[in-house]
Amino acid sequence: MTAPAGFKANGIRCGIKESRKTADLALIVSETPCTAAAVFTGNLVKAEPVKLSMEHIADGKAQAVIANAGNANACTGKQGYENAVRMAKSVSEELSVPVNDVLVCSTGVIGQQLNIEAVEKGMKELCSGLSVQGHIPAREAILTTDTVYKEDEIRVDIGGHTVTIGTMAKGSGMIHINMGTMLGFITTDCAISSAMLFSALKESAAATYNCISVDGDTSTNDTLVIMANGLAGNPEISDKGSGYKTFCAALTELNERMARKIAADGEGAERLIECCVAGAADDRAARTLAKSVVSSNLVKAAFFGRDANWGRILCAMGYSGAGFSPDKVCVSFQSRAGDIEVCRDGSQIAFDEDRASEILNEKEVRILVNLKDGHGVGKAWGCDLTYEYVKINGDYRT
Amino acid sequence: MTAPAGFKANGIRCGIKESRKTADLALIVSETPCTAAAVFTGNLVKAEPVKLSMEHIADGKAQAVIANAGNANACTGKQGYENAVRMAKSVSEELSVPVNDVLVCSTGVIGQQLNIEAVEKGMKELCSGLSVQGHIPAREAILTTDTVYKEDEIRVDIGGHTVTIGTMAKGSGMIHINMGTMLGFITTDCAISSAMLFSALKESAAATYNCISVDGDTSTNDTLVIMANGLAGNPEISDKGSGYKTFCAALTELNERMARKIAADGEGAERLIECCVAGAADDRAARTLAKSVVSSNLVKAAFFGRDANWGRILCAMGYSGAGFSPDKVCVSFQSRAGDIEVCRDGSQIAFDEDRASEILNEKEVRILVNLKDGHGVGKAWGCDLTYEYVKINGDYRT
Repeated sequence: MTAPAGFKANGIRCGIKESRKTADLALIVSETPCTAAAVFTGNLVKAEPVKLSMEHIADGKAQAVIANAGNANACTGKQGYENAVRMAKSVSEELSVPVNDVLVCSTGVIGQQLNIEAVEKGMKELCSGLSVQGHIPAREAILTTDTVYKEDEIRVDIGGHTVTIGTMAKGSGMIHINMGTMLGFITTDCAISSAMLFSALKESAAATYNCISVDGDTSTNDTLVIMANGLAGNPEISDKGSGYKTFCAALTELNERMARKIAADGEGAERLIECCVAGAADDRAARTLAKSVVSSNLVKAAFFGRDANWGRILCAMGYSGAGFSPDKVCVSFQSRAGDIEVCRDGSQIAFDEDRASEILNEKEVRILVNLKDGHGVGKAWGCDLTYEYVKINGDYRT
Repeated sequence: MTAPAGFKANGIRCGIKESRKTADLALIVSETPCTAAAVFTGNLVKAEPVKLSMEHIADGKAQAVIANAGNANACTGKQGYENAVRMAKSVSEELSVPVNDVLVCSTGVIGQQLNIEAVEKGMKELCSGLSVQGHIPAREAILTTDTVYKEDEIRVDIGGHTVTIGTMAKGSGMIHINMGTMLGFITTDCAISSAMLFSALKESAAATYNCISVDGDTSTNDTLVIMANGLAGNPEISDKGSGYKTFCAALTELNERMARKIAADGEGAERLIECCVAGAADDRAARTLAKSVVSSNLVKAAFFGRDANWGRILCAMGYSGAGFSPDKVCVSFQSRAGDIEVCRDGSQIAFDEDRASEILNEKEVRILVNLKDGHGVGKAWGCDLTYEYVKINGDYRT
């Protein structure tokens, strides 16, 4: 997260929620003002910090992101919005950064007022501790039901200059197609115009974050932010030429890695399910079909039981809305343990059920679907549906 | 199911699936030819008996329905279709009814060939045992993971004649908005034209069967059939006058009762969730919002935990696609134990959590949402998400 030049971070426990014993407040700051872009939840019910951050990023600029866990500050009305403003102001005053260059993100329970006094009280400690190493407490401070932190980086050459992109994110419930991460942060030292940055973020998110599903619920707080401070010294990317293509490909690869991590750490998940659809009429149809498969509760429950129930895969594709020929579909399962074909031309073929269970017993399992209808390809990621998911969500607030 | 004049039924165990110890083959027959209508699954992957029944009902007529449990005869290709034809032929020969007046329905595992020999072998016993009392074994023979049978009837006066409508159905998994029942059968002695019968079926299904969700998966086999033999002697309903309105209202009431039964008996369910949305811009928006709430895994898991997590209800409405003003929403919970308001004008109000848990602890719980945006109302039904759902579907095929 702080691998690109000029970025620092920190994370502390300020005490937003008494029962939470780990860090709950994270800050990411660039030494210099950044070009910035963000995509937010499509949910009509938007959390108060989302509303504020949408205003602050409207000018395509930002320099700091403050994020808390333990409280989503959603469905909290005027007081909630005021609290989001106070969070931004507190950072602005401490760091002497314009208030509208501070973005605010929150995650946690919906409908309760944020303990803003705790946030303000912790701000001096949070800011004074900013450092390159601070990405370690920061990546912990944004987690909720996540069992592991998610952080990664990638380097790429643009115009003879090494450009670095760093990222951290949190999952792990209320995650569905169309902004599947509650919070995702990306930093880069790339020199890139605001328009190109937004374009690259949207393009890469469409193929990655927007293709994961944990439970079919789109959260009120989803935010994916990228800040680019230009310190890599590359010639500024201002059109969709080769520099843009290189940057966008690297960003997509990085986001795909993170999307996989989030799906794998879905609430209660025991395994990552990757669905790869090939031979569709076009890429759009392939992606729609793959998303429908990883979103199906019945497919997810079957994977929990290591049951090669391919009929549910065809069923989930059938109600996706995308067209295909059911009698041409071929389905295989693949993992580190090997691969096995289970359906050819829409019908079952003889296969060894025990061998299939072995293959499905791995931590990462791939569903390969070939539609033999065209050249469209698409991928999506999800996880199995477990007792633990039900347990976690049966009593989340207490 | 056999309450309307002229209908007989029977159910037997023919042995479609060795492990199944209960009846697996049901037959419903009218003494005289019927006007008939049906709505089928919207899934692109349609089971073979669905394809056949769609052809057979194209002329708006039917006289018998044969249905089996234990095998869905879906994703079974040409051989599967031939087996569906053989099922219809077998009934046709035994009862001397035209083959295209026989509808075929199947439910059970997808992707395995049907044991058609067992069906044919059992046909003589099935047909010779047809009787008015035969609705009792018939209603058992169509069940899969259902824990209770679903059957009901209603009587109404049309033009001075008592018209009876009977029905039976099965749930209980792979159930979602848009034909939420895998199999539903309705019989009536009403005299009604084919066009009016289809119109009444569609209209009533839109407000009932199409508003239930157990797990978000639309099955490959969903079929809802109505047969009307006219023996009640009422003046034939041939336009949308008062007779039609009376018939349609009765059919809708009957279907709503059945839809509630199916949702309440959803796989693993411990409680029925009814969501009633009022004050929407129009009825269509209200129904869309109610459906989104009962389909949310997070809402369903919260009810399992008797957790008054109203934020998830707002969240689920927010991604439904229907418009409303988040800051005007009021939410209450209601059950036999009383009622409690938890959210007013989009924000939490002080309420007693223990009292809320008590109210949510009942077998039937209602979510009352008032949007204060207009006069639209709508209802939808679902159930909680439990460990048992995951268990049932983790290993369904074996």
